Amino acid sequence: MADVCPKNASGITTGPVEGSRKVYSSTGSGLRVPFRRIELTNGEHLDVYDTSGPYTDDDATVDVHSGLPRTRAGWRGDREHRTQLGWARSGVITPEVEYVAHREGVSAEFVRAEVASGRAVIPANRCHPESEPMIIGKNFLVKVNANIGNSAVTSSIEEEVEKMVWATRWGADTVMDLSTGKRIHETRERILRNSPVPIGTVPIYQALEKVDGDPASLTWEIYRDTVIEQCEQGVDYMTVHAGVLLRYVPLTAQRVTGIVSRGGSIMAAWCLAHHRESFLYTHFGELCEILRAYDVTFSLGDGLRPGSIADANDRAQFAELETLGELTHIAREHAVQVMIEGPGHVPLDKVVENVRREEELCGEAPFYTLGPLTTDIAPAYDHITSGIGAAVIAQAGTAMLCYVTPKEHLGLPNRDDVKTGVITYKIAAHAADLAKGHPRAQERDDALSRARFEFRWTDQFTLSLDPDTARAFHDETLPAEPAKTAHFCSMCGPKFCSMKITQDVRAYAEEHGLTSVEAIEAGMAEKAEEFTRAGGEVYLPLTTKPW
Amino acid sequence: MADVCPKNASGITTGPVEGSRKVYSSTGSGLRVPFRRIELTNGEHLDVYDTSGPYTDDDATVDVHSGLPRTRAGWRGDREHRTQLGWARSGVITPEVEYVAHREGVSAEFVRAEVASGRAVIPANRCHPESEPMIIGKNFLVKVNANIGNSAVTSSIEEEVEKMVWATRWGADTVMDLSTGKRIHETRERILRNSPVPIGTVPIYQALEKVDGDPASLTWEIYRDTVIEQCEQGVDYMTVHAGVLLRYVPLTAQRVTGIVSRGGSIMAAWCLAHHRESFLYTHFGELCEILRAYDVTFSLGDGLRPGSIADANDRAQFAELETLGELTHIAREHAVQVMIEGPGHVPLDKVVENVRREEELCGEAPFYTLGPLTTDIAPAYDHITSGIGAAVIAQAGTAMLCYVTPKEHLGLPNRDDVKTGVITYKIAAHAADLAKGHPRAQERDDALSRARFEFRWTDQFTLSLDPDTARAFHDETLPAEPAKTAHFCSMCGPKFCSMKITQDVRAYAEEHGLTSVEAIEAGMAEKAEEFTRAGGEVYLPLTTKPW
Repeated sequence: MADVCPKNASGITTGPVEGSRKVYSSTGSGLRVPFRRIELTNGEHLDVYDTSGPYTDDDATVDVHSGLPRTRAGWRGDREHRTQLGWARSGVITPEVEYVAHREGVSAEFVRAEVASGRAVIPANRCHPESEPMIIGKNFLVKVNANIGNSAVTSSIEEEVEKMVWATRWGADTVMDLSTGKRIHETRERILRNSPVPIGTVPIYQALEKVDGDPASLTWEIYRDTVIEQCEQGVDYMTVHAGVLLRYVPLTAQRVTGIVSRGGSIMAAWCLAHHRESFLYTHFGELCEILRAYDVTFSLGDGLRPGSIADANDRAQFAELETLGELTHIAREHAVQVMIEGPGHVPLDKVVENVRREEELCGEAPFYTLGPLTTDIAPAYDHITSGIGAAVIAQAGTAMLCYVTPKEHLGLPNRDDVKTGVITYKIAAHAADLAKGHPRAQERDDALSRARFEFRWTDQFTLSLDPDTARAFHDETLPAEPAKTAHFCSMCGPKFCSMKITQDVRAYAEEHGLTSVEAIEAGMAEKAEEFTRAGGEVYLPLTTKPW
Repeated sequence: MADVCPKNASGITTGPVEGSRKVYSSTGSGLRVPFRRIELTNGEHLDVYDTSGPYTDDDATVDVHSGLPRTRAGWRGDREHRTQLGWARSGVITPEVEYVAHREGVSAEFVRAEVASGRAVIPANRCHPESEPMIIGKNFLVKVNANIGNSAVTSSIEEEVEKMVWATRWGADTVMDLSTGKRIHETRERILRNSPVPIGTVPIYQALEKVDGDPASLTWEIYRDTVIEQCEQGVDYMTVHAGVLLRYVPLTAQRVTGIVSRGGSIMAAWCLAHHRESFLYTHFGELCEILRAYDVTFSLGDGLRPGSIADANDRAQFAELETLGELTHIAREHAVQVMIEGPGHVPLDKVVENVRREEELCGEAPFYTLGPLTTDIAPAYDHITSGIGAAVIAQAGTAMLCYVTPKEHLGLPNRDDVKTGVITYKIAAHAADLAKGHPRAQERDDALSRARFEFRWTDQFTLSLDPDTARAFHDETLPAEPAKTAHFCSMCGPKFCSMKITQDVRAYAEEHGLTSVEAIEAGMAEKAEEFTRAGGEVYLPLTTKPW
């Protein structure tokens, strides 16, 4: 993979993506919404959705220690202590709603209605004013989350911030900080202050650190205080495994891979150790009140998700989903926004059932799935085993996809792995946007295909999800600069080119003033008749160009 | 990507895949069928389908100049000049049928009936006795083809043979030699004599070389002689773009990317230049007679396949498919086996329609598709954009998938690209096998998942599609050898492990003699009641193990 991006003095990647520049477009009330403008060699341009924040501005001068501008701080006004869901239900168009409407190319009223119904969420903690608002819901562009985080085994704070910047550069719509090691608070603080995208966490991880890794020692009070600490810092959404009930734990005993969710297994361990119902479930109302105060969005975790093909769609998984449905309705009564997390490992024939059940049980709350992996037999390629499942589940209605990197099941992702994971999931998300008929999704495909057909090589690179690698791959076979404008490629070589034939067909049509398919057919039939009348043996070249 | 495989003196990769050894299993009449036996550290083993030929034998001593043993030469007996389709219709179980039945784990009679109906083909030219018979059909394991071939721009004969060996090592079921440059005949000869898998070609490429690259100069006679030359060499299946009719060419004029098939555009150019119907179409009956004499299988090419999302499922594409249906029935009248090639670039919502139409128009002849790519915006990742489409189209009934490498649209694939393409397509094929409920497909997933759950790291590697890279990725984070048996991984670290929780749940169940989910639930309920009666405040650990 090509990595030619410059880093600034803090070791953070800055500057525009190759062939693009950041532009800002104003909403009706003057909010500045970022887009990435891809400039084409034929004088045209294409503006695409941009998640990268100020890091890709022309004059980006980011200092990781001072953090990003607190843009949304001025937006709040009298909206304290009310959630986007609350305002949307009251019919109010918040600045966040106006912003995401402009970003998605839809009306603000449509956005408000989707948020009000609970079909979409805008994860935007009032304590994270650095973030650029975005929306997650099945009637919007499919979003991608990238996980980062240090672990007990390795990695540093600077590395984690750079991973966040790197992931959003390539299109991550949200980032989850899954740190489990030392300095969790400090790491998260630096990520939040520097993040233009919503940040999600799994608070039980930090709570477990506070009790030195012993699940049985966890208490509601320790957990609650951890959640408040993270709300105050500005975390935008939190995974809460409140659906892992005591009575569901035995359902996992005969699974091939038991419980594979870290949070789920922590809660299962607690329930078993105490023979009591999960404190996340019994205190769920209190939790709602805390999240409501900051407008933090629930991401109700699937602690009993299947960890193998054998365990997909089993009783444990769907029992938990029923409880998540129950909790969704409680959260909504508290005016708290809710997403639902989904599997995991699921064979292709069982993927769609997950979406249908989730929608039915959870009132169409945005579904947020990990993959799913469609086979277990390809460690080192699980970005692909899961990218397949991700595209299919997103086509069926999943609103956000949690990426999987090539290192899944094997080790911690490095810089290249993070990029590969994000790009793979942007592909899955975009394939779903196309399949769902999102009105503007195909513009980029068409622009790239036209560039391909017209041999505008540079435009093919800049329109692609990863211009650096596309260019590098082309350079491997045909490195010379003239090859970037050559009317052939390495597949057929200079002597013959399939693309050129169609250009000749078109030239023929234009030459003869034929503008419709029917006219071209008729024109050619006439030509063929002339040919037959002439004896049928003479070679009449269509054009004089060499083939 | 890890590449730790040894090469022999000819520069060819030989020796077993890591953790496996080649075994041969005898059919009823004593034919030796290869399998790859994956030896596990717990004393179990799993035998998997193997495409790699003698190169992975323990004592492999392959010399590229003398070629592989001519195993099938002794099988032919009185079967000269009759095809597998012909014999199957007569109710005869050929050795090839017996062989593939053993290989697929089904009855010979089932295989015979599928071949007789035309729903499956066994591409096995009687002049390619080095090949190990295999079957392509929707009721068998989904197969993968890898394309190799030099081009006008680059690459050598030795490299091409090694690419074939390399591709089959990782699971390519057939290989297409798409050479377009010099020494086409010689390259193909060396590939055929050394190939354990069926070899496919596109004869029009070589025919075009014979007329110095000018499509207008092609004639039926030049093409026919090229086909005979290739049949004599032992090519097992041939792509023939006989469905590109003169009247269909104008249908492509207003496409975004026109005609993108090389063979399709050659024939379109010929039709336009002469204003006559394609000689492939007008001489199709003669072509059938030639292929029948060698039992070469038709792969009817989709010369008008869409080259972009915008052109998917359009009039040109489906008009050609109708003609391919007509030709399928003609070929079958001549007792020639037929596959049908499919697209290309297709958004997810239009994928399944391709299979349904193909099955209806072409009498369920095996469908053989290129991807399809589900978006155009990710050059350098088109193995993934197409792997998604490949899994979905295979689930819908496609019998063989033609791989796409990361270099698609950009350059010529190198060794790593070939492997990445094959592995990606093995994933897509296997995901489809699982979704279709192939009786033995899930065995490997279950074996790997059990290994994962039990922390048998080495078994996870050897059961994976690419043991070398899986091991290398694990080594990056936890290189020490003890980590291969450690009961934790780099994600959670040594202090806490989600997998371990379930082991504790199971231990509890076993300790209390609870064997069903119901018994475990009942046992735990009782335990919980005891706990409540005891005052509900005492901490009763389930196990004494540290978490």
